[in-house]
Amino acid sequence: MSSSDGLVIIEPVSEYTRQILKLKKIYAVEKTPYQEIVFAELEGFGKALLIDEFVQSTEKDEFIYHELLVHPAMALHPEPKRVLIIGGGEGASLREVLKHGTVEDAVMVDIDEKVVEFSKRFLEVMHRGSFFDPRARVVIMDGLEYVKKTADGTFDVVVMDLTDPYAGPTALPLYSYEAFREIKRILKPEGVMATQAGSSYFYPKEYRQVKENIEKNFKHVAEYWAWIPSFATNVNFIVASDAYDLYGLSAEMFDTRLKSRNVNTKYLVGRRLTAHLSMGVLYG
Amino acid sequence: MSSSDGLVIIEPVSEYTRQILKLKKIYAVEKTPYQEIVFAELEGFGKALLIDEFVQSTEKDEFIYHELLVHPAMALHPEPKRVLIIGGGEGASLREVLKHGTVEDAVMVDIDEKVVEFSKRFLEVMHRGSFFDPRARVVIMDGLEYVKKTADGTFDVVVMDLTDPYAGPTALPLYSYEAFREIKRILKPEGVMATQAGSSYFYPKEYRQVKENIEKNFKHVAEYWAWIPSFATNVNFIVASDAYDLYGLSAEMFDTRLKSRNVNTKYLVGRRLTAHLSMGVLYG
Amino acid sequence: MSSSDGLVIIEPVSEYTRQILKLKKIYAVEKTPYQEIVFAELEGFGKALLIDEFVQSTEKDEFIYHELLVHPAMALHPEPKRVLIIGGGEGASLREVLKHGTVEDAVMVDIDEKVVEFSKRFLEVMHRGSFFDPRARVVIMDGLEYVKKTADGTFDVVVMDLTDPYAGPTALPLYSYEAFREIKRILKPEGVMATQAGSSYFYPKEYRQVKENIEKNFKHVAEYWAWIPSFATNVNFIVASDAYDLYGLSAEMFDTRLKSRNVNTKYLVGRRLTAHLSMGVLYG
Amino acid sequence: MSSSDGLVIIEPVSEYTRQILKLKKIYAVEKTPYQEIVFAELEGFGKALLIDEFVQSTEKDEFIYHELLVHPAMALHPEPKRVLIIGGGEGASLREVLKHGTVEDAVMVDIDEKVVEFSKRFLEVMHRGSFFDPRARVVIMDGLEYVKKTADGTFDVVVMDLTDPYAGPTALPLYSYEAFREIKRILKPEGVMATQAGSSYFYPKEYRQVKENIEKNFKHVAEYWAWIPSFATNVNFIVASDAYDLYGLSAEMFDTRLKSRNVNTKYLVGRRLTAHLSMGVLYG
Repeated sequence: MSSSDGLVIIEPVSEYTRQILKLKKIYAVEKTPYQEIVFAELEGFGKALLIDEFVQSTEKDEFIYHELLVHPAMALHPEPKRVLIIGGGEGASLREVLKHGTVEDAVMVDIDEKVVEFSKRFLEVMHRGSFFDPRARVVIMDGLEYVKKTADGTFDVVVMDLTDPYAGPTALPLYSYEAFREIKRILKPEGVMATQAGSSYFYPKEYRQVKENIEKNFKHVAEYWAWIPSFATNVNFIVASDAYDLYGLSAEMFDTRLKSRNVNTKYLVGRRLTAHLSMGVLYG
Repeated sequence: MSSSDGLVIIEPVSEYTRQILKLKKIYAVEKTPYQEIVFAELEGFGKALLIDEFVQSTEKDEFIYHELLVHPAMALHPEPKRVLIIGGGEGASLREVLKHGTVEDAVMVDIDEKVVEFSKRFLEVMHRGSFFDPRARVVIMDGLEYVKKTADGTFDVVVMDLTDPYAGPTALPLYSYEAFREIKRILKPEGVMATQAGSSYFYPKEYRQVKENIEKNFKHVAEYWAWIPSFATNVNFIVASDAYDLYGLSAEMFDTRLKSRNVNTKYLVGRRLTAHLSMGVLYG
Repeated sequence: MSSSDGLVIIEPVSEYTRQILKLKKIYAVEKTPYQEIVFAELEGFGKALLIDEFVQSTEKDEFIYHELLVHPAMALHPEPKRVLIIGGGEGASLREVLKHGTVEDAVMVDIDEKVVEFSKRFLEVMHRGSFFDPRARVVIMDGLEYVKKTADGTFDVVVMDLTDPYAGPTALPLYSYEAFREIKRILKPEGVMATQAGSSYFYPKEYRQVKENIEKNFKHVAEYWAWIPSFATNVNFIVASDAYDLYGLSAEMFDTRLKSRNVNTKYLVGRRLTAHLSMGVLYG
Repeated sequence: MSSSDGLVIIEPVSEYTRQILKLKKIYAVEKTPYQEIVFAELEGFGKALLIDEFVQSTEKDEFIYHELLVHPAMALHPEPKRVLIIGGGEGASLREVLKHGTVEDAVMVDIDEKVVEFSKRFLEVMHRGSFFDPRARVVIMDGLEYVKKTADGTFDVVVMDLTDPYAGPTALPLYSYEAFREIKRILKPEGVMATQAGSSYFYPKEYRQVKENIEKNFKHVAEYWAWIPSFATNVNFIVASDAYDLYGLSAEMFDTRLKSRNVNTKYLVGRRLTAHLSMGVLYG
């Protein structure tokens, strides 16, 4: 077993545990006005983006996270054409959204220019060129501000791919009651939203707050979670809509919709989605 | 967020990651002839047993692990009367086994006297007195040796609750082809066995080897896994039998059998078992 | 090279560095009303006392620290009979003081009963029975309170063997201007005091403050420092007196006085003391 | 006190201790054919060069190390004109050598082109332009090979500024008996050599071996050591010559020679050198 000596990241996984990750290479370390970002190659996990000491995405396992974030909401909507991604700077959520043949416009709004710039340069393995898809548009702007300036009923699907609700001040306002009210406003009546919401196990209070803020705004709210290996913890997802209920989406319908839109996945198939939805949330 | 300064355990979760766990209290640290054992109170996880630097059980989340290890195999058997537990020194597997009203004899064989002695003293919260149940018997002996000395067709269920196949030399022989052959021999024809098998994600080669050794000996082999928060990783379980197939056990049947035997669980219900069985194994 | 996995102490050596120390055995971990104390065996350093995450003394190198703290002040005084030690719970300063044949009474005042109790039990290798010397008396009491209640001109030498000025709130009041004024008051006119004062390199502001508080009370103030291997940093000492100047004590006189009092040392001889006094203080 | 979370270096200071250093910025991380090099900015210590996980030089305290390595040997020689530096890639030893007005040629031989290239780019604060001094010449070559190809009696002073004898295989051959024989051969009869030799405290066996190899080749051998804050340990130096004895160099002579050659130092003055030489070596 290799030692943990040398260049490492010590990540505060929970209030009382840390993860030590070994670094093989460092592409960029930068303090932006919003956060501290690290683009690196991790031992065992490959290329990775870390924000404020938290692993965001690694080459080896980001597909689990991004497929779970994007496809349930997208599949729940019968024909998602206009999609908004808030955050998601490394381009992997955009990549998954664009897989859906129904999509005509995908707007990605990220507050941090540097994240996008370095992702383009170092994380091709994640964005896979999605930044340059003619249907895609990247806006550098505060997500909440963008939402506020957007007209009512603009989007079919909104995907929130932000840092954890407890990770720092940058993303926090986007998890508020007001933010979800605004997101609902810019969705069409049949619109669907999805968000990651951190770990319900290690941050039950923060998770419940996010869920409550969503429930006050949407009629149907579904929750599911997964263990992401490089996070050393689980992560929770919430999908909400006034029109559709994710708990009512059968495994078959999920598979059928993905297939009809030419979406290929490595992790998420209908059977697994159903399993995730049956698991129930874990509170620590 | 509290810092990681002070008394901690640095746990080698995988070949390339570590977990740092904060210690609040230490009850005992001992190098036995077999392993190094630590009985402590962990920040956030409560009382805990660690063997050779690996978390085995913590007060807060051991029920997830022990319910998943014990009840699928027990529920799969229509009437488990005689049960053998190999390992399981802190008494929690024994506790779960004894919940089943059908059980008449439960033998627990652990190689390490010290683990059992200290568990009795410090981990009442885990064993819950199961060591003193009149149906229980604890044998201090090498598990494989015990199995070899046991007559054919002695047990209805065998539960292996050992350290990981890659954790060190003590448990390794019990994961071999020969060991499973012997375990099958001492099971009745309708017998069922269950084992934990480490993390298929971080140790795919070792996990596959264990699975292969089981498959060569049993007709029906089912696998499932779970994230255990204090492990900072997942853990895999395998249930095998010549008579019964866990994949064929419905959620309803699971719930019915547990109920008829007066088994109460905190985590595992039929719906969740089905979800676990549908998840598929993750290889890293 | 052995890894740093397993049971360790992460010690905040400075504001920006940590030391990881491997633990072989733990004798006691206790949160007292004053501090958190750990009695352990450290890999490479042997038995050790840690207070509030800081190494205080280890079997292997405590003689360097305690000889440097005690003997310069003791040798500077022509005939130290009555000596007060404030702190010094593990008994090693007391041991060094009692080596001086001139000593008739040595009072050790420690605020923390538990430190003394466990030191008696686990650190015989340090106190060497000094607690039971008929000339020694241990008082469990706040050091400052003891000093305030002591009559003027009671002691020939006062040795302060406390945690660092920046280590926490327990020792801090004893490094104040008022505390040194009181210490001067209870010294005879020819009295000498010595204190450790933390690391001038990593805590220059805190060190200068202590020095200033001493200089305002005493005519002669001498300073010297040493690297203590198990501290992973240096530690500074200050000796003060109205009657004698340590800078004027020749190496020969130091050796002569120690010899005439039957004091044997492992580290400190006159030549080395002179070298320490010529080194000058390092500020980081 | 800032936490140790985030980007850090875990440095194996000894067989049983580690130092955690916080990184503020990373300029370059590179695996060369010889070693792994990191150019970074450390919290508290400023710009720094690390080789194979060991701190080599930091902006804040490298002057202590480099003045102690270079000036005793240089001052011991009455008129050093031709000087060879083996290793010393960041250019700080070269900087100190060139301060001596007597120097006409200074050759620096480093095996690792990358160390020199990145030092030129990122560590101006260390080399201070010395690479571009007309008296300086940098040769990229294995040090021992260079020495072997050099004619008898070429240099007045040889300074070895290598990684520790126990740090890895790259520098080790240069600490052998044969290497010192060759170094003596290329020195003039009145020549002087100096080397760092790692920590005698944490690696007594390795240090003694180096000293023995030098003693077998030179008539006069002097040793001294210092605590280097960013190393979290001490470092030992050895100066050897057939003509001159460093123990015989008075503080006054040291100061006079430095002054006459227009050498300014921040740490090392005659009084301090004498103190270092009187300290005696510490073996752990």
